[in-house]
Formats: sequence, C-alpha cells, structure tokens
Amino acid sequence: MQSFTFDDLMQLPGRYRGVSLNKISGLKPANLIGTKSESGQTNLAVFNSVVHIGANPPYLGFILRPTTVERHTYENIKETGVYTINQITTEIHQQAHQTSAKYERDLSEFEATGLTEYYHEDFQAPFVGESRIKIGLQFEEEHYVKCNDTRLVIGKVQHVLLPEGIIEDDGHIALEKLDSVAIGGLDTYYTVEKLGRYAYAKP
Amino acid sequence: MQSFTFDDLMQLPGRYRGVSLNKISGLKPANLIGTKSESGQTNLAVFNSVVHIGANPPYLGFILRPTTVERHTYENIKETGVYTINQITTEIHQQAHQTSAKYERDLSEFEATGLTEYYHEDFQAPFVGESRIKIGLQFEEEHYVKCNDTRLVIGKVQHVLLPEGIIEDDGHIALEKLDSVAIGGLDTYYTVEKLGRYAYAKP
Repeated sequence: MQSFTFDDLMQLPGRYRGVSLNKISGLKPANLIGTKSESGQTNLAVFNSVVHIGANPPYLGFILRPTTVERHTYENIKETGVYTINQITTEIHQQAHQTSAKYERDLSEFEATGLTEYYHEDFQAPFVGESRIKIGLQFEEEHYVKCNDTRLVIGKVQHVLLPEGIIEDDGHIALEKLDSVAIGGLDTYYTVEKLGRYAYAKP
Repeated sequence: MQSFTFDDLMQLPGRYRGVSLNKISGLKPANLIGTKSESGQTNLAVFNSVVHIGANPPYLGFILRPTTVERHTYENIKETGVYTINQITTEIHQQAHQTSAKYERDLSEFEATGLTEYYHEDFQAPFVGESRIKIGLQFEEEHYVKCNDTRLVIGKVQHVLLPEGIIEDDGHIALEKLDSVAIGGLDTYYTVEKLGRYAYAKP
C-alpha cells in the first residue's frame, strides 16, 4: 500500500497533486450549468460538484471555485437569480468538457461548443437542449468556504424537464437508460452499468 | 418531454419525490465515512455527497442530513475531530448499502456488516480495510444550510492510502481499475467504463 501524509501531499508537484486529489473521492456527477447575464449573454460551464441538498422542498448545491470560467456563472446567478443544471450524456461529453476552456466573456460556450440553448416558459436561464435531464433553479443561499476561497451555492428547484415516461412507478429514474455519464476528477468521463438497486436498508 | 414545476414537485407523494429527485442531478460518488466516539465505539455510514473542495491544500466536504445514522457520524467528528472517507468498490457495495440501516448506537456498522476496521499509524478514526482508496481527515469547518437543516462539513486531508503503483506518472488514478462504483440516488449502484480522458480544454 502507498501512503501520503498531508505534508507528503503538499510536497507533490501542483499539477500532479491536482490530478490525483480530484480523483480520490470517487466518481462525480457530470453537469453543465447554464446562465445568462442581465445584458443577455449566455454562459455554460461543466461542473462535477453538484450535490443533492434535499428533496422536500427540492434543493441542489454546487461548489464554485475561484476560476474565471466559473466566475461568469456566479456573476450571472447573482445578477439574475436563476440558473440551470443539465445532465451530461455520452453524446455531448466532449462538448461539455470543452466548456471548461477560458473563453472571453463575450463568446458564449453554447456558440463555441455547438450545444443548443433551450428555453422553457418564461424561465430566464438557458437549458441545454441536448441534455436528457434539465433543471431550472432559483438561487437560495450561499456559503463562503473560508479555508480555500470557494463557495457552496444552493438553489431551489423550479423546473424539472425530462423525457416522457422515464420516471418509473415508484419514482425511480434509470440513469443508465439516459446515457448519463460520471466524471473522474476533471478530465475522465465514464459510462455506467447497473450493478443493483436495493431496498431501504433495515437492521 | 415531461415537465414539473416547483409546485408540481411539492404535490408528489413524499417517497416518490425523494426517489426521483435524488437522481436528477446525476451519478454520485460512493463512499463510507468511518468515525469513532470518545468512548471507543466505531460507526460507519454510506454517503453519496462527498465533494471535492480543493487540492492545494487538500480539502473534501460532504453534506450531512439530519438523520439518526448520520448524526452518529457528526457527533463522533465533533468529539474527536477526525474521520475517514473510504471508496466503495463493487465487492463491498451491498455491505456499504447496509450501513444505512438504523442500528442502535452501541452496535458498530463494521460489526453489523462484516466490513473490517483498519487503523493507520496513530490516526484515531477507523478506515475500511476493504476500500481501495482510504482517506483520513481532520475536521476544518462546517456550514449550516438554513433552507433545510443540513450541513456542509469540510475536512483537511491528513492521510491518503491506496494500492501501490495505482497513481500514474502524471497523477492520474484509473478509477475503473479500482472497481470504484457510482450511486444513483440512494439505492442504485453502478460500475463504470471509461469513455475517454481529455486534455485541459483550450479555446
């Protein structure tokens, strides 16, 4: 077995440490966050940090790092109060990855990557047309993480859009049938195959 | 396409809403959090909400819901300041799921499920012997989520233990070779197959 202490980790070259430490916590959800500025400029960015906060009422969170790309996302959320979370599928995973490039603010990642802006009713933020599960959220609260200048951003789910008939009778959604992908770290994409679904555990 | 507004979601039966909304944000990391109380009682609980906070220095977070099982985890972290995050593999995913049962406080989930307590140097919290990637953390900060009484708990990585030779020359860890699993919602477990690994995206 190989072991690293905190001091060992801090001695590693920065890029090596970033690549490996982004993978130690396991597979991650693969989503695109879509926003629009007050002036109408759209933005789209890949996030691997979306986290379930609650179902009753429905809230989702994500971790926002202090980078240029994600700052556009944050600024737009603060300006308009709304954003979308869109699941990445096998078909669009390479376009999704490309949204992490540092484009200039006046070039939309929708345009740069060829993904399609999709609008639903009067919701201001753009959904990703190609995503099978699209979620519209209203900003709810944020928490500033002191230890490394990141933020937990939480939104209340306002809209859920998904293919007809995909929700089973008990509420189950078979993610493998939606071509959902998982992410390893920042750079590796995976398809999934079902191992099993289990009842609520009892002692 | 099927669509739900916030009001539609709130009208759904509670269990149906919980099952479906836990899946809309995509695949999740599968980890076991190990703790020990001051009196020496160990606890182990499955978590699908571990999130990367940063690599420099290394921090991980997780969302703690206000349930009995997870409260033992929280109390032990507050008592001792330390805990472990252990990746769930295909071999142990059913035992891992079973840790979510509401056992009495004086029965360790290690004992109840047959998973093995593993100790490293003088680190007080128990690792899971069967996990391929084991992480020891020191509590760093927490944030109380007002909207639904959950918490973001953040720890600084003190130890990383993993199989010899699994980290590649550039820091990459091939999670598919470690039999890492992903979780859909609270009840469905997946194996993964690599689609591709991509360079840092440039415009």
